[in-house]
Amino acid sequence: MKEEKKERPIILVTNDDGITSPGIRSLVNAVKDLGDVVVVAPDKPQSGMGHAITIGVPLRLSKVENIFGSIEAWQTNGTPVDCVKLAVDKILHRKPDICLSGINHGANHSINVIYSGTMSAAMEAAIESIPSIGFSLLDHSIEADFTASEFYVNKIVKSLLKTKMDRHFLLNVNIPMVPLDLINGIKVCKQAYAKYDEDFDERMDPTGKKYYWLTGVFKNFDKGEDTDVWALEHNYISVVPVQFDLTNYTLKKELENNWDIL
Amino acid sequence: MKEEKKERPIILVTNDDGITSPGIRSLVNAVKDLGDVVVVAPDKPQSGMGHAITIGVPLRLSKVENIFGSIEAWQTNGTPVDCVKLAVDKILHRKPDICLSGINHGANHSINVIYSGTMSAAMEAAIESIPSIGFSLLDHSIEADFTASEFYVNKIVKSLLKTKMDRHFLLNVNIPMVPLDLINGIKVCKQAYAKYDEDFDERMDPTGKKYYWLTGVFKNFDKGEDTDVWALEHNYISVVPVQFDLTNYTLKKELENNWDIL
Repeated sequence: MKEEKKERPIILVTNDDGITSPGIRSLVNAVKDLGDVVVVAPDKPQSGMGHAITIGVPLRLSKVENIFGSIEAWQTNGTPVDCVKLAVDKILHRKPDICLSGINHGANHSINVIYSGTMSAAMEAAIESIPSIGFSLLDHSIEADFTASEFYVNKIVKSLLKTKMDRHFLLNVNIPMVPLDLINGIKVCKQAYAKYDEDFDERMDPTGKKYYWLTGVFKNFDKGEDTDVWALEHNYISVVPVQFDLTNYTLKKELENNWDIL
Repeated sequence: MKEEKKERPIILVTNDDGITSPGIRSLVNAVKDLGDVVVVAPDKPQSGMGHAITIGVPLRLSKVENIFGSIEAWQTNGTPVDCVKLAVDKILHRKPDICLSGINHGANHSINVIYSGTMSAAMEAAIESIPSIGFSLLDHSIEADFTASEFYVNKIVKSLLKTKMDRHFLLNVNIPMVPLDLINGIKVCKQAYAKYDEDFDERMDPTGKKYYWLTGVFKNFDKGEDTDVWALEHNYISVVPVQFDLTNYTLKKELENNWDIL
């Protein structure tokens, strides 16, 4: 890709685990030397929010002092997508050069890209013509070790800031849960057709009424060696380029040719 | 498309405006003669929920008697996506032949497919290998006239139930806000790059603290005549075939060939 000289970049950082999560702290650490970082993140965890936006309640926005040293940081009561919208419209004085979301505590590979607040924030930025990357570590733990993640986040962002990215540039990056020296490198992949085979845990409340918790077992239905799930199983960092045009062009052509009610 | 003989189909109906909305009543009316309809819908409006799932609170599920005559109906406190998961895992005895979501009060064309609870419910079904269609009418009003919508929903579903649909078959159907006799027909389209140019209405609460409401003006950046926005502006029903593989294969190839850190 072509190299491009720029003024010091503005880096918008957000996430879906909330502004106090260790993952966003690692993301800030990883990129703070690469540009002027501004953090706008939810004031509480917002996992599984998908591309939700807040319509029914007013949004609040407040500056948080000293949470990431001298770096400007804001929290909102909104979703990850709201954070990006608020950052662009109310906080930043110019469009950021890149938006980074994460580092998520837990995988966002395969079909999870659709449920993920981390990736939805990144996608929102890409829709707004801000090149964007979502980062996720395959470790749900609050005590997850982000050492390898920080190394690769820095490497990836540094490399991309030197290039001319398309304005809708969007990547879904997942990092395997292994120490830095066991990571085999970076692999560009397609999204696997792999998903949770869901079930509901049925319980009874003290008044005798049923309630349900969503549970599930992860299953990979995709045997390809070009998928994010394959790469992660083989200790690669998976990078899936993502688009927000959801049109199924194959089915479009089929319907145009064969659908008798057109 | 090939015709296929089947037993009486099971039709799962859901929405994001809630089980008492006029739109879901019209959807049930439109298809009740085409199969055995089962309704599983949110107990309150869930617009703008995108592909959110409920993780932090337990889900409730209760049967609602006599809301759609003799048709089986259930309500939940969950999101539209939760409704589909609960229907498949806890209510239906076999996989439904088709899932229908809507009829939404308001447009879900162009980029709105990503924010829409209506389309997210439909997409969840498609992920679960249930052919699925989301329907939306370009009229937000609670008193919207669904006459034309009912006619075309019936026509579309009737036609598709006779064919062999792919298990991940998914359509986003939008209906213009004009009387039946002014509709020019059905057009298969691509998703337009058109979106809300957002702003936030900044207000002051009685204690002197700022709060924000999301507002915006709709803008079409896509001048193509093959888009859903174009079709709707010309009084066609727009049908966009949708996929949930979000991989950007063009960017994938570009990165594989040119990215120096691989």
